[in-house]
Amino acid sequence: MDEFDLINQYFGWGQGIGDDCALVLINNDKQLATTVDTLIEGVHFPQNTSAQDIAYKSLAVNLSDLAAMGATPVFFTLAITLPNINKKWLENFSNALKTLAKQHNIALVGGDTTRGKLSITINATGVVDKNQALLRSGAKIGDSIFVSNTLGDAALAWQQIQNQQIPSNLLLQQFNRPKPQIELAQSLLGIANSCIDISDGLEQDLSHILAQSGVGASIDLQTLPLSKVVMQYITKTQDWCVALAGGDDYELCFTVSPTRIHHIKSIEKDLNIKLTKIGVITEKIGLKILGLQQNCQSYRHF
Amino acid sequence: MDEFDLINQYFGWGQGIGDDCALVLINNDKQLATTVDTLIEGVHFPQNTSAQDIAYKSLAVNLSDLAAMGATPVFFTLAITLPNINKKWLENFSNALKTLAKQHNIALVGGDTTRGKLSITINATGVVDKNQALLRSGAKIGDSIFVSNTLGDAALAWQQIQNQQIPSNLLLQQFNRPKPQIELAQSLLGIANSCIDISDGLEQDLSHILAQSGVGASIDLQTLPLSKVVMQYITKTQDWCVALAGGDDYELCFTVSPTRIHHIKSIEKDLNIKLTKIGVITEKIGLKILGLQQNCQSYRHF
Repeated sequence: MDEFDLINQYFGWGQGIGDDCALVLINNDKQLATTVDTLIEGVHFPQNTSAQDIAYKSLAVNLSDLAAMGATPVFFTLAITLPNINKKWLENFSNALKTLAKQHNIALVGGDTTRGKLSITINATGVVDKNQALLRSGAKIGDSIFVSNTLGDAALAWQQIQNQQIPSNLLLQQFNRPKPQIELAQSLLGIANSCIDISDGLEQDLSHILAQSGVGASIDLQTLPLSKVVMQYITKTQDWCVALAGGDDYELCFTVSPTRIHHIKSIEKDLNIKLTKIGVITEKIGLKILGLQQNCQSYRHF
Repeated sequence: MDEFDLINQYFGWGQGIGDDCALVLINNDKQLATTVDTLIEGVHFPQNTSAQDIAYKSLAVNLSDLAAMGATPVFFTLAITLPNINKKWLENFSNALKTLAKQHNIALVGGDTTRGKLSITINATGVVDKNQALLRSGAKIGDSIFVSNTLGDAALAWQQIQNQQIPSNLLLQQFNRPKPQIELAQSLLGIANSCIDISDGLEQDLSHILAQSGVGASIDLQTLPLSKVVMQYITKTQDWCVALAGGDDYELCFTVSPTRIHHIKSIEKDLNIKLTKIGVITEKIGLKILGLQQNCQSYRHF
């Protein structure tokens, strides 16, 4: 059972479940977008991860969820479970959290501390103009499918860590310090028809867009944007799963109708970001991956 | 180091830290009140606690924080860490959560599931009219100090559990199913000068009011409202700490100025609730407890 099934089956009575954030109407003009993510030592980050990297990633993954909806970050709460009080660790954690919070103008407004195995739960809340949020359910037949930057770097780092190898600094940076694509998402408001952040792997996350939009897609392996090191790894191993099913990229996957596609070039230029067309939304249900010879196992929460 | 010191020292750069909820202005009339609490198996509830009781308490403690501020519950998120998928357990958990959520008209809007030691983090958000929230910082010299219902029942239950005794159903009910005092808090808006929920023990929680209001207080042990079973326990042991320092009561402690004290009787009657005056706010800094012969150790998060 994956997380999606579990939530649907047992918590389907909740409202707004099924997007990166829940939307709550707060007045006639604005909606709150709220999201929560837990990071557990040994599950979501290796045991020897620095306090700074843990703090950064705990907030970044939530900012990424806000980004996926096109929401502007406003405030967050922090529930932290600590095995003990390590002053240096707490200082490092707090400073890194503060730095990222300041960068994205999001205020820490409350928290809870408990004793136990190291675990961090952040609930981040943003605002978005009413009915303007980027949703998973808006993809239309004929839309072009885009992803930002490159795919698979974080997954390759994680794989190397698990195999007792030491990833390159670049890979580690992508794994520990994923950049929440807040600015990109803001630029996509009114332009993209649907959007998701790639936290569980492109295949799984794009499939969420397809399921909720009631459409299919065809993407081409050869068009996936890859960093040099991931490209070398795939050339050697033919293991495309690192790019297709690797989690933790936190890039955005979004769809744009043909009439608005000309905006993409200027967004790329304005934000100095790489946006790559990887396929199209089709009428035929399902995700067709041209060139794929293997089955990939996407990240499962259970 | 207690939780309060820890948060102040390392996360003091956050906004609004120091009340039961953080307040965030959302428009000209309303403020959001948001709070987060984590419950961990073996720390906040015994290992054999039922899924229903865990669900109830996880949400109830957060509703209690909203109550302490006089906020009306609106929505919550659930981050749950599970050791495995037990369908019966999840069904029971979900149903109990839904029942309490419906009672208080609060919507589940999002969540995260992860694998690990059983732990539940709920972030609950409510609304309150701008500048009307009940704060810890509003106590005035001469205010009467009140508490709702009785003190020490949950702490006595917890003590008995830890001593391998089986608490009475009444005590267990207080421990596992504390009633969030939402209605009482709503009635206190515009009447109480300050308010807190008693989650860490009366002595510690009242001391937060005193510290943040820059005042002192004198309370009288003999006036503390006690259930029959707690009174019997104290008569036998003279252990007043169970009522003074026992956590988990989730009753409200609030202060009312002499000019508004006549409202209390009608609130008691309207809500069919017991409100007991236990002392007064004084100019002299510190908490004086008349009749106390022992030192109590309040609940510490660390």
